[in-house]
Amino acid sequence: MSSGNARKLVSKLVFKNGLIPAVAKNNSGKVLMVGFMNRKSLLKTLTTGYMHYYSRSRRRIWMKGEESGFKQRVLEVRVNCENNSLLFTVEQEGLGACHMGYETCFYRKASIRGVFKKVEEKKFNPKRVYGPSRLKTSKKLLKE
Amino acid sequence: MSSGNARKLVSKLVFKNGLIPAVAKNNSGKVLMVGFMNRKSLLKTLTTGYMHYYSRSRRRIWMKGEESGFKQRVLEVRVNCENNSLLFTVEQEGLGACHMGYETCFYRKASIRGVFKKVEEKKFNPKRVYGPSRLKTSKKLLKE
Repeated sequence: MSSGNARKLVSKLVFKNGLIPAVAKNNSGKVLMVGFMNRKSLLKTLTTGYMHYYSRSRRRIWMKGEESGFKQRVLEVRVNCENNSLLFTVEQEGLGACHMGYETCFYRKASIRGVFKKVEEKKFNPKRVYGPSRLKTSKKLLKE
Repeated sequence: MSSGNARKLVSKLVFKNGLIPAVAKNNSGKVLMVGFMNRKSLLKTLTTGYMHYYSRSRRRIWMKGEESGFKQRVLEVRVNCENNSLLFTVEQEGLGACHMGYETCFYRKASIRGVFKKVEEKKFNPKRVYGPSRLKTSKKLLKE
């Protein structure tokens, strides 16, 4: 999309504290991840055709796959009725979306006992793709 | 889920400003809506088995379908790798999730020209389901 048309589209959206939630799913209807975008990362997404999110913890824009090479190519962009969330259909390049080694970040399911259990198979070794440092940071973010 | 187990589950999650994004999709993989939950609305969701969101604009918890009767029954709850977003598989009761009369809130798709176009069929007349006042408020929220 041209940068003019991308700006036109962005101007119609409602951002809260500068952010809008963005869901990425693949063509089979599998939800891969949920992130946030600010205006700039959305413009980058629309003009390059690759998903760019805004990291609230790192406070910066990142292109999905910048480290792993596992980019997300945009196939379709949808908006909700209130113009305050986005749904992207993407082609997930590489082995998966999740930095823990899974196709989707939603690889755990809640049981009736109130615990999360893995229900997806690991697709790749995240240490090989991201190196150990990134994983250490992520583990700190996890509470369990 | 018992209220004890629900609290156990909630304690593992990461809320930002008291909120966590919640995606609702149906069993066919169609994403119906994206909302936010606070701890209390998530506890209500887990203990009643029906989706309860927190409305950031109205600053209150609402049960999906409280006005229309079109509730969302929870079939599955998933969490992402960083414990900061939730993916619900739901059975959408009634005619659709969207207060504008569609099955999904994501009934518009971005065109290459930077405009959103309707790509879903209307399933019901929202005026009959919600009355005209609610729709007027929603139109104010929309920028286009």
